[in-house]
Amino acid sequence: MFTRRSLLTGAAAFAAAAVGRAALAAVPEPAYPQGPDTVVPKAPSTGRPFNPVITLNGWSAPWRMNNGWKEFHLVAEPVVREMAPGMKANLWGYNGQSPGPTIEVVEGDRVRIFVTNKLPEHTTIHWHGILLPNGMDGVGGLTQPQIPVGKTYVYEFELTKSGTFMYHPHADEMVQMAMGMMGLFIVHPRDANQYRVDRDFGFILNAYDIDPGSYTPKVSTMTDFNLWSWNSRVFPGIDPLVIRRGDRVRIRVGNLTMTNHPIHLHGHDFEVTCTDGGWVKESARWPEVTTDIPVGAMRAVEFVANAPGDWAVHCHKSHHTMGPMGHDVPTMIGVDHRGLAKRMITLVPDFMTMGERGMADMGEMEMPLPDNTLPMMTGTGPFGPIEMGGMFTVAKVREGLARGAYGDPGWYQHPKGTVAYELKA
Amino acid sequence: MFTRRSLLTGAAAFAAAAVGRAALAAVPEPAYPQGPDTVVPKAPSTGRPFNPVITLNGWSAPWRMNNGWKEFHLVAEPVVREMAPGMKANLWGYNGQSPGPTIEVVEGDRVRIFVTNKLPEHTTIHWHGILLPNGMDGVGGLTQPQIPVGKTYVYEFELTKSGTFMYHPHADEMVQMAMGMMGLFIVHPRDANQYRVDRDFGFILNAYDIDPGSYTPKVSTMTDFNLWSWNSRVFPGIDPLVIRRGDRVRIRVGNLTMTNHPIHLHGHDFEVTCTDGGWVKESARWPEVTTDIPVGAMRAVEFVANAPGDWAVHCHKSHHTMGPMGHDVPTMIGVDHRGLAKRMITLVPDFMTMGERGMADMGEMEMPLPDNTLPMMTGTGPFGPIEMGGMFTVAKVREGLARGAYGDPGWYQHPKGTVAYELKA
Amino acid sequence: MFTRRSLLTGAAAFAAAAVGRAALAAVPEPAYPQGPDTVVPKAPSTGRPFNPVITLNGWSAPWRMNNGWKEFHLVAEPVVREMAPGMKANLWGYNGQSPGPTIEVVEGDRVRIFVTNKLPEHTTIHWHGILLPNGMDGVGGLTQPQIPVGKTYVYEFELTKSGTFMYHPHADEMVQMAMGMMGLFIVHPRDANQYRVDRDFGFILNAYDIDPGSYTPKVSTMTDFNLWSWNSRVFPGIDPLVIRRGDRVRIRVGNLTMTNHPIHLHGHDFEVTCTDGGWVKESARWPEVTTDIPVGAMRAVEFVANAPGDWAVHCHKSHHTMGPMGHDVPTMIGVDHRGLAKRMITLVPDFMTMGERGMADMGEMEMPLPDNTLPMMTGTGPFGPIEMGGMFTVAKVREGLARGAYGDPGWYQHPKGTVAYELKA
Repeated sequence: MFTRRSLLTGAAAFAAAAVGRAALAAVPEPAYPQGPDTVVPKAPSTGRPFNPVITLNGWSAPWRMNNGWKEFHLVAEPVVREMAPGMKANLWGYNGQSPGPTIEVVEGDRVRIFVTNKLPEHTTIHWHGILLPNGMDGVGGLTQPQIPVGKTYVYEFELTKSGTFMYHPHADEMVQMAMGMMGLFIVHPRDANQYRVDRDFGFILNAYDIDPGSYTPKVSTMTDFNLWSWNSRVFPGIDPLVIRRGDRVRIRVGNLTMTNHPIHLHGHDFEVTCTDGGWVKESARWPEVTTDIPVGAMRAVEFVANAPGDWAVHCHKSHHTMGPMGHDVPTMIGVDHRGLAKRMITLVPDFMTMGERGMADMGEMEMPLPDNTLPMMTGTGPFGPIEMGGMFTVAKVREGLARGAYGDPGWYQHPKGTVAYELKA
Repeated sequence: MFTRRSLLTGAAAFAAAAVGRAALAAVPEPAYPQGPDTVVPKAPSTGRPFNPVITLNGWSAPWRMNNGWKEFHLVAEPVVREMAPGMKANLWGYNGQSPGPTIEVVEGDRVRIFVTNKLPEHTTIHWHGILLPNGMDGVGGLTQPQIPVGKTYVYEFELTKSGTFMYHPHADEMVQMAMGMMGLFIVHPRDANQYRVDRDFGFILNAYDIDPGSYTPKVSTMTDFNLWSWNSRVFPGIDPLVIRRGDRVRIRVGNLTMTNHPIHLHGHDFEVTCTDGGWVKESARWPEVTTDIPVGAMRAVEFVANAPGDWAVHCHKSHHTMGPMGHDVPTMIGVDHRGLAKRMITLVPDFMTMGERGMADMGEMEMPLPDNTLPMMTGTGPFGPIEMGGMFTVAKVREGLARGAYGDPGWYQHPKGTVAYELKA
Repeated sequence: MFTRRSLLTGAAAFAAAAVGRAALAAVPEPAYPQGPDTVVPKAPSTGRPFNPVITLNGWSAPWRMNNGWKEFHLVAEPVVREMAPGMKANLWGYNGQSPGPTIEVVEGDRVRIFVTNKLPEHTTIHWHGILLPNGMDGVGGLTQPQIPVGKTYVYEFELTKSGTFMYHPHADEMVQMAMGMMGLFIVHPRDANQYRVDRDFGFILNAYDIDPGSYTPKVSTMTDFNLWSWNSRVFPGIDPLVIRRGDRVRIRVGNLTMTNHPIHLHGHDFEVTCTDGGWVKESARWPEVTTDIPVGAMRAVEFVANAPGDWAVHCHKSHHTMGPMGHDVPTMIGVDHRGLAKRMITLVPDFMTMGERGMADMGEMEMPLPDNTLPMMTGTGPFGPIEMGGMFTVAKVREGLARGAYGDPGWYQHPKGTVAYELKA
């Protein structure tokens, strides 16, 4: 599942204040994922037991036990992320991917996280939501010097409570988050049966402004993004949530965009059971089918998947389930092009005017696109064109799934083939 | 209150997979409303008893009982909606209006809904928030083929829980919702005394981008809308909420725009008692005077109207209580035009520079407008110009209302005359 | 702390309907603050006892007891607000400042508030969230005539419940709020020990669109603001929250911008304990580290400050912790300027290309700016450049603070010097 690369110049040059020469020899090699598919986590082989999280189109970081400390190694660096088949983006991330690997630890764990900066500018990591000493909080200039280019910094803290957290830079923050730097940080409860669910999914909402035909996000965009993504992936590139009928399911969602995203699940109602501030007590929970995730906040929702079928899961802002498009286009609805079309067809046999009857045509009949972009509406389901993009995927609730052991990769596999079979273009 | 039209070509051509020849003869005729005023619902004459909802500037669909099934007929089609006196829009809706009629049923009911597509492109209906079999979920391509132009499709399901829901297309979704396709779907509790209130209002928040002087919304707009509406109506075209002092009142609000709308009520605090996920238990309720309705979500709020008077009810984003206006205008505040004005007045006797003392002038002295648009600030109340537009109306809490029977049209009428008397231009 | 100015023409001309000739002589003189720093309130010397609120970079209005009524005097007028050292704005406010003074009263108090209009256009005041008679609700045209230029109007009501409220105009509302007219209105509980905390902070979120080099906000802007402020101040001009370790702390935040602001606190989790609708009961409270403040709503959060250090407090929308900047700039990341730079340097020795390695350079090396604007990223902390702007400050949790008496100005002072010593440029 992972490859291990030795760090080139980066690993050799540690921030003197943070890592001594003796520690240097002991830095764990960073791990890298292969490809953009969901890496189903295995049960942990060292440290306290826990039920791992399934990071959609992502993976969890391995660790090394060292005298009672769990040691991780994150490498901040430029990455190339396939956002969906046919479209790649030049982003910044950790360990070869954006988002970085999910960090999974257990309440009571002591963690030591080495952060090597292979970006072209300084950085830090803030451990969003985690209670820790002020010097470990990762706010550049305020609680630490920023990590210079080429240097490694070490964070050490003890996890005093379980919950759903994130990590991201607090240095040149707008730019570094607009480039994709973020990751999930899950602290499992000390008792693996507390808050237990059968499937536990996680992803972070992000958004990019990449002009069709180009590769690098515009980092100054405040509202007019054109790629609305989950873990830096867009439909039809987002893996489905494969669920056995009757499973109790948790979905953990963080938001590091510039606007609220109301995440809507079809076919089931749910409750928010956890935020980045902790677990929500039973008396305070609301029933919902759409949970509005604020920026810089996290929500974990839970439900029992008792209705079999393919249930849409998506942001309910309709522009956020579209591929790249312009937002200042005159309406063609009701405009009669027939005279024009007739004249044009004599000149250009394949000529067709678009949009005067709505845009559904565009979901059915995909048009030539510039290199390295995605259609505005795409995807095909069992009944035809799905006409979506962006923040959309499907919860596949099935009777026929093998139960297997929690965390066994086979347990996540859909019986008919790959996890995403019907949705991949 | 309603007229019944026979369907022309649409009704004759049913989707073979969905409606057999035998069923065809039995399809109920669709009903149409007359005019844009609130149609106060009557108590139901067939099926289980319930206390009906008052749809602001809307109406509830009639049904037919057929062997224990409640049968409704929705016709998706282009409509002309008067958004306020003096301004009409070319929208898409159901049964001659946008939004479509409110569907009101009772927990335990089995419903059969015929949907005839008279739009220029395919469509579906998704029953937002309702627990139903996957094949009835209305997601084009994923759970059903889209309904072709001219065809009729049938949805059948049983209502397993009461609550506040919506319906809208899940086909070319961004376009079809930007054109106004949506409606309320209320499931009343089996016991009509459960969650009982004295007045139960409902509306859906929508937004349009229609250039002054034109009639059809721009369907690609993502944020820069200029008509912020409730049930496709804007102030002063939104009927007031007529309330008897001491009534327990519920207001149910859905949001199908592209941004949160914080709905603010003056003079009373309230609690959210229901979402599109179900009823909120007592222990979990918060007191509020402004409830933030996320996109793709619903909130029902309740309060006892114990303070008589005219209480504003509005979205608290100040641009959303304005009529159409530009958002990129230089400020004139503090700019001294006096020299200019003096010279101009010798040339143009009626010349007046605007905006250097704020914009209140524009609420008092309405200017000539292009055809088919609305003033930026308008409306007159008992004490002068109200200077509003968009998402604004008034809760009229009165001692003097006749009690009458719930659901009796007279019971909604203000004693002094029409429901909206002071606010209509 | 305050100065008292006699009102010039304004005070001499009262709205006849509101203030009689006899009352005129009795109008209290309005008070004015000196400078933009936080004025730490003293314990009240008349009326019921309460524990005062610390208004960040603001102050609380004095009152006069008159036969059992608390009398306040607000003067609506143009003001000049220093938003941060080096940048002033021409705003509208109350009593010489934007926001106006915080009004602090006690449950059961009867208040009489004189409002003198020295703006160039009419105005009103709406007492947001407060339960009062309809005629005192301040909605121009609907519940009262607007207050003409030069006139004084009187509001009178009794406070029937404690909580966290605001005041703002309901006349030419979009313009007057875009110009900065707003203030906090705190009603303390009748029993000063109910809901007691050790430090109680308050501020209102506002936003302005002021072009670099100019002074007056553009009042028609709907989304593309460039100054995201708290109490009309931006980082590094926002005073820190000085807290003694172990204190129970409340932060009350209102939002009168055009978008949600998710306010994030580092190092502590908290609960929302109060909204503008009232106190949230214990069973309904959620743990959070980021609370999303809707527009036209208020949230009070509470926590025990048990972790010493400098903890960031900020809006988590990354553009809202930036100074003025453009939002439609091409990305330079990954663009290789070396050839260009080499040629340019021979021509212009100090030439430097920017942005190809991110934007952190801009936080470290401030560039020449036009008159009267602020850098995009600024501020210096104990470890170097903080690279922030806008809605950002720091909670300084310290062991070494003198306890003093609540409300004693010395009690708020940081032991090392001024309250904001490290952060002021």
